[in-house]
Amino acid sequence: MSSDTIDRVVELLATLPTIGRKTARRLAFHLLRQPTESVQAFTDAITLMRANVRECSVCQTFTDREVCAICASEQRDRSTICVVEEPSDVMAIERSGDFRGVYHVLHGVLNPLDGVGPDDIRLRELMARLGAVQELILALNPNVEGEVTTQYIAKMTAPLGIRVTRIARGVPVGADLEFADDATLARALEGRVPV
Amino acid sequence: MSSDTIDRVVELLATLPTIGRKTARRLAFHLLRQPTESVQAFTDAITLMRANVRECSVCQTFTDREVCAICASEQRDRSTICVVEEPSDVMAIERSGDFRGVYHVLHGVLNPLDGVGPDDIRLRELMARLGAVQELILALNPNVEGEVTTQYIAKMTAPLGIRVTRIARGVPVGADLEFADDATLARALEGRVPV
Repeated sequence: MSSDTIDRVVELLATLPTIGRKTARRLAFHLLRQPTESVQAFTDAITLMRANVRECSVCQTFTDREVCAICASEQRDRSTICVVEEPSDVMAIERSGDFRGVYHVLHGVLNPLDGVGPDDIRLRELMARLGAVQELILALNPNVEGEVTTQYIAKMTAPLGIRVTRIARGVPVGADLEFADDATLARALEGRVPV
Repeated sequence: MSSDTIDRVVELLATLPTIGRKTARRLAFHLLRQPTESVQAFTDAITLMRANVRECSVCQTFTDREVCAICASEQRDRSTICVVEEPSDVMAIERSGDFRGVYHVLHGVLNPLDGVGPDDIRLRELMARLGAVQELILALNPNVEGEVTTQYIAKMTAPLGIRVTRIARGVPVGADLEFADDATLARALEGRVPV
């Protein structure tokens, strides 16, 4: 068998994270077995998502709207901002169900070795939000870059007299926040300590 | 964060084989970080594949053409047909590089419990090809359904006087004998050949 159009799809699928060539082939063959309408619905959903989803003008997370549902909600406490690396971290903490404040998504962490400096992540946008904020909870991944970024934000915000905390190191060291279980995340939030 | 368009993509990605909800989320976020043109190229490739790929009119494998490259090739021996379950099996055997015959893809195996009978797989198409065939190599998966189908084809073709063989079952090359399962080891012993 040889098919350039299948090869092309396999090649593109294999560029996705966690997808190797064997899985890519399996996915391509799966798509070939689906009705054309299902495959169309699938590609349409992706196209729609890429076209409609933008960053919330307040917290920078991914959203369909100008301001995300959390930032727009009357139920959330705007005096507490939880700072995370990625939009997926917002989803993870929301699933833990305990946090009633709002978020700020950095879209990255400081990484001098990779050339990621303060202007490359959403630190300016964070500073601009701190007017009426009482507590900043730093919930970055428990690794070197997360630690560097935590310390940087603590120093940067020190003159403002805001309470700056970090989530407890109940999150396993070296793990990805996104994959922590709900109970661990809830505990980590609960056990936050001053930086 | 809440986004219906992201949720929809996650939901659809999670229907794919080997993709769980966490991986689906990770893939969706990955796509959101790609340039719109890359995502468009990705969905276009899938749409093009689904629209162009059909089953070869001879061997029933997936192909962009009326007759696949293997069936159309002058270099292949049409007197030997290797029968496989899926188009991916054709790719696997082609990668092994040793087979110079042609293929027949059943698109499934007999599975009475799941209601898959002889008319649900490409057995009729196989029978129609057997005129000048000298050997039929049955290369179905070494499980119960593969075995049932192997026996069925052997019986079905017996009156034609064609040589019908099956691929050897034994310990995988490069594998550790210690980790082979009992059934495989029993088969390997049973099928021993002179050195």
